[in-house]
Amino acid sequence: MDLQETEISSQPIFKGRIVDLSVRTIKLPNGETSTREIVKHQPAAAVIAINDKQEMLLVKQWREAIKQVTLEIPAGLIDFTDASPLDAIKRELNEEGGYRADYWEKVTEFYSSVGFTDEKLHIFYCDTLTKLQDKRPLDSDEFLSSEWYSLDELKKLLSEGKIVDAKTVYAITFWENMLLRNKQDEESNND
Amino acid sequence: MDLQETEISSQPIFKGRIVDLSVRTIKLPNGETSTREIVKHQPAAAVIAINDKQEMLLVKQWREAIKQVTLEIPAGLIDFTDASPLDAIKRELNEEGGYRADYWEKVTEFYSSVGFTDEKLHIFYCDTLTKLQDKRPLDSDEFLSSEWYSLDELKKLLSEGKIVDAKTVYAITFWENMLLRNKQDEESNND
Repeated sequence: MDLQETEISSQPIFKGRIVDLSVRTIKLPNGETSTREIVKHQPAAAVIAINDKQEMLLVKQWREAIKQVTLEIPAGLIDFTDASPLDAIKRELNEEGGYRADYWEKVTEFYSSVGFTDEKLHIFYCDTLTKLQDKRPLDSDEFLSSEWYSLDELKKLLSEGKIVDAKTVYAITFWENMLLRNKQDEESNND
Repeated sequence: MDLQETEISSQPIFKGRIVDLSVRTIKLPNGETSTREIVKHQPAAAVIAINDKQEMLLVKQWREAIKQVTLEIPAGLIDFTDASPLDAIKRELNEEGGYRADYWEKVTEFYSSVGFTDEKLHIFYCDTLTKLQDKRPLDSDEFLSSEWYSLDELKKLLSEGKIVDAKTVYAITFWENMLLRNKQDEESNND
């Protein structure tokens, strides 16, 4: 089955600081035309940071798009000064949390919402954290505080609807998964 | 720490079929002003549908925003004719997959990307599926095919970078988690 759509033309609507919007006219697989509203967005990186007490780092911040304070894993845009997504998230972990980590692992990468935007998120895991004395300042329009949560606390917050951010819901499920697999590995080693 | 930002004004930029874009001027917690580019988007619903052979249903479709064919769990916008997110996803499971399910469970709900959009996704789990004789037609500009995948196949696709959609990466992690927990429950019952 041929699924491909072909771009016929693209009308730029808006170029902003963070997003660009355009309306693309496309040819559908059956030869007819339709339009797609496309939001271009810089890629971002996020981190599942776990401390020695087996707690995850979350940041609390106002999100104007949904007009509420959220709890989220640290994240930030990958900008042109970053050599890689990993560089970007190391900077964010410093700025948003005030930490550096010695152990890093790439977890996955995905597009936030492929129906309308090309925003891509690179997700990392880190542990073996050190609190920094020389924390980098936040961006001038960024206000947030950071806190640590155990898996049980996170699952409770999730079930109460207090964690509403996609990457953070994913992060909790990923971490639970990792702990379950570690436990199974231990048990099978003990058999 | 006061984190709240206050909307001072909002400039509408674009009203489309799927998204609305505006630029909001806001007052930051420190009294200064900044702007936020906000994309409004209808909420959507998605489903982790598992058959009796322990396979997950994915749909293959062209996504113009990232100009590639994706593998995704079935999903669709919640429209004004839907009484609830569950109604919407039952319709999508019919349209996109040609199935009805007897067992349904709400998994979670989250915002796709709180930095710039209010798009919310309601995620369900279902099993006990029946292939329908009277499948509903797809939308006139929608082209897709559906396929079933085991957890091992999904994990392989994921590791090869062939699953790039956030909700689908989440779905695989959620399902693996569910199976790991079921296995542990069984084992502790056998002890």
